[in-house]
Amino acid sequence: MAKAPVLTPQAEDFPRWYQDLISKAELADNGPGRGTMVIRPYGYGIWERMQQEMDARIKATGTRNAYFPLFIPQSYLTREAEHVEGFAPELAVVTHGGGKQLEEPLVVRPTSETIINEYFSKWIQSYRDLPLLLNQWANVVRWEMRPRVFLRTTEFLWQEGHTAHATYEDARDFAARIHHEVYADFMENVLAIDTVLGIKSPAERFAGAINTRTLEGMMGDGKALQMGTSHELGQNFARAFDTRFLAADGERDLVWQTSWGASTRMVGGLIMSHGDDNGLRVPPRLAPTQAVVLAIKDDPAVLAKVREIGAALTAAGIRTEVDDRTDTPFGRRAVDWELKGVPVRVEIGPRDVAADTAMLARRIAGGKEPVAIEALPKLLPGLLDEDQELLLRQSRERRESRTSDVRTIEEAVEAATAGGWARIPWADLGPEGEARLAQDAVSVRCLVAEDGSVPESVDTPGNIAVVGRAY
Amino acid sequence: MAKAPVLTPQAEDFPRWYQDLISKAELADNGPGRGTMVIRPYGYGIWERMQQEMDARIKATGTRNAYFPLFIPQSYLTREAEHVEGFAPELAVVTHGGGKQLEEPLVVRPTSETIINEYFSKWIQSYRDLPLLLNQWANVVRWEMRPRVFLRTTEFLWQEGHTAHATYEDARDFAARIHHEVYADFMENVLAIDTVLGIKSPAERFAGAINTRTLEGMMGDGKALQMGTSHELGQNFARAFDTRFLAADGERDLVWQTSWGASTRMVGGLIMSHGDDNGLRVPPRLAPTQAVVLAIKDDPAVLAKVREIGAALTAAGIRTEVDDRTDTPFGRRAVDWELKGVPVRVEIGPRDVAADTAMLARRIAGGKEPVAIEALPKLLPGLLDEDQELLLRQSRERRESRTSDVRTIEEAVEAATAGGWARIPWADLGPEGEARLAQDAVSVRCLVAEDGSVPESVDTPGNIAVVGRAY
Repeated sequence: MAKAPVLTPQAEDFPRWYQDLISKAELADNGPGRGTMVIRPYGYGIWERMQQEMDARIKATGTRNAYFPLFIPQSYLTREAEHVEGFAPELAVVTHGGGKQLEEPLVVRPTSETIINEYFSKWIQSYRDLPLLLNQWANVVRWEMRPRVFLRTTEFLWQEGHTAHATYEDARDFAARIHHEVYADFMENVLAIDTVLGIKSPAERFAGAINTRTLEGMMGDGKALQMGTSHELGQNFARAFDTRFLAADGERDLVWQTSWGASTRMVGGLIMSHGDDNGLRVPPRLAPTQAVVLAIKDDPAVLAKVREIGAALTAAGIRTEVDDRTDTPFGRRAVDWELKGVPVRVEIGPRDVAADTAMLARRIAGGKEPVAIEALPKLLPGLLDEDQELLLRQSRERRESRTSDVRTIEEAVEAATAGGWARIPWADLGPEGEARLAQDAVSVRCLVAEDGSVPESVDTPGNIAVVGRAY
Repeated sequence: MAKAPVLTPQAEDFPRWYQDLISKAELADNGPGRGTMVIRPYGYGIWERMQQEMDARIKATGTRNAYFPLFIPQSYLTREAEHVEGFAPELAVVTHGGGKQLEEPLVVRPTSETIINEYFSKWIQSYRDLPLLLNQWANVVRWEMRPRVFLRTTEFLWQEGHTAHATYEDARDFAARIHHEVYADFMENVLAIDTVLGIKSPAERFAGAINTRTLEGMMGDGKALQMGTSHELGQNFARAFDTRFLAADGERDLVWQTSWGASTRMVGGLIMSHGDDNGLRVPPRLAPTQAVVLAIKDDPAVLAKVREIGAALTAAGIRTEVDDRTDTPFGRRAVDWELKGVPVRVEIGPRDVAADTAMLARRIAGGKEPVAIEALPKLLPGLLDEDQELLLRQSRERRESRTSDVRTIEEAVEAATAGGWARIPWADLGPEGEARLAQDAVSVRCLVAEDGSVPESVDTPGNIAVVGRAY
């Protein structure tokens, strides 16, 4: 008799599989307020590892962390016209504080360009103060009409970088550097998610930006997820907040700026990229727990052995957890670790202790075989590297096999509807074609250059639009 | 001619000295909303180091991080009567979201006991789920009538731990463990701040707690600062949220809980404990930058040498920064580093390069003398240890020399007014005496046992009240 599946199968109902996985792997719960979420310890542990890896890359660019207030005076938001138009429908507003109605309502930050520019205007005096490179890790709030855990939540956690530069070129190059050295490097080498790097069409650009670089990942159902964006803000916010510097030539010039962010939405991307019908699969370089050592039953020799192996693996630099909760049936614990996607399980029972072997189960490459216990610390790092590469390869192969080159809007819609992406010359599509795609819920995810690189601008000849359905 | 002091001297005006230091050392700025702050990169770097050290200690207790929503339905707050009474005057309320008035207003969390209990009620089924040990790093909002940067701000950053246990004893012991192993250990061994560990009088207890443990530090002006608290919540929140577990005996019992927090207020405590008329002094174990290597002038040999020394110190495990901004006068940079309180400055000019020596300036122990460059990597760790010990000793000596044993309320007020603390038997003071002290703005900081340890309870015979003025 076949066992009932732990999760709704992906092929049956992908959105429901996603919700099932988040619930059963104990990643998150829905919050009490509309569209909010509670990130449970295992989900938060994954986010903490994302933060560590991203933060190191951000700091390597010379950027330093700071913290700006959650509440932004409503008047700040209105200073940059496109920006307020983009965010006004999504704002949460504090009208009362300390038991009294406030004179000016405070907006809960949806993003921090405005309040940060207010301070940049105070801190930046001369060209010696530039570039000014700041980042903050924070919560932000955007009222969501169709919330979905991790993907679109009213409150989410993110990092938002904000920088000011003396020239257009310096700002542009820095936005590109973040795109490549922070986001692309992290997503490829840690998340093991293949992404297409490109620029947004004018319709999809960040409200207030002159150019937005993006990374688009293809999920298991062929839909796209925007994984991170890096914006050139030009002088739009500098003009609105009069952020100027004394240039070497004695002029008081407006600064050129960038902003860039990636959020807890990446956890959703991780699930939808690497998850399967048995649960999550976490890339080893990201995994808070790379190996779990399980005691099959409550036996003193077994318990001593799992602790000994746990210590040996930890000493070998492997993030290891020992599961000695023998009051819960072994089978249920094994299924739980599979659901959570821990790359390697080392299972120990009395016979294994006697034989000095362990049963080694691999969540990503698959398979289960006995190995000598003493060989584990040297064996595992290589297996984890293989798993890491395998996930990236599977992600890349999915994107390549489900992307087709087309010439007409009808073909593009057809490809997207079938669960994939289409590449169509931007010259053949244009803003009018983009509007027609929207009628079928298909959008331009990004524009790439003819050779697949990130184009100079929207108008660069030969640009190709990558289009698909998106989260 | 004496130079004008960089800061208002402490002896002249301590609060103004504090504000001056925060501004000139670029730790923080006032935010635009009432009582908010902008934490600048240097101040945030100090907070990040606090987070790292605290987080490691929190995790060592078996506690894991999670994240709960910023917005709490107003109805949750009202379920625990004392809790809502304590926090109602301080709340910020969101009444509008996504362009519409909300059906139920949302409170911006002032602390998270209520929303966390809602989820504990879902997650806790049986005794096997206990203890449940969670912590979150988050921003919270409490409307402040008399705000002061880092000490009392409308929004602040903190960690809040929340745990649930099967028995009163287990909860009590865990609250005590956090008090000692996380907070006391961190404050003594990292912050180098001497604190008195005790319990709060009933009047000073957290709203909703049955017992509050506290750590009180004496600031440079003899006033007290509450540096962290660990609460036993009894079954108060469990009752309000019906948080029950199936006990081994088959009964559905209410859990016993704790909560505990420490915040960015500790940055204020750091400044007021260790700062002097020349600026901040950061304990080496905390310092984001332990040593700075300064190029005195723009000379190729000098610049090469500072980078070489910087690399050697970094390789020796010392958190090192190289200051080669020779377009700013050397004297100004030296004053800046002194203001920022970096423990060690290594200054290099052309003559030093020729002689293979560096001028070594010590911010904490004081003094400036030439040392052989090659000796630096081996020399500095020992000096930094000395500095760390010296700061703790100075902090302890201040508290000891400014604390007096008294028998009357008048003597206690006199001691507090003179800038110190008084110790008075709690049996002689009691709640009535406490109310009389309050008329002179003097409060009971904590109760300690006769032998100086943390007492079992408020009613333990022989308890001594430590009283003083406080921030």
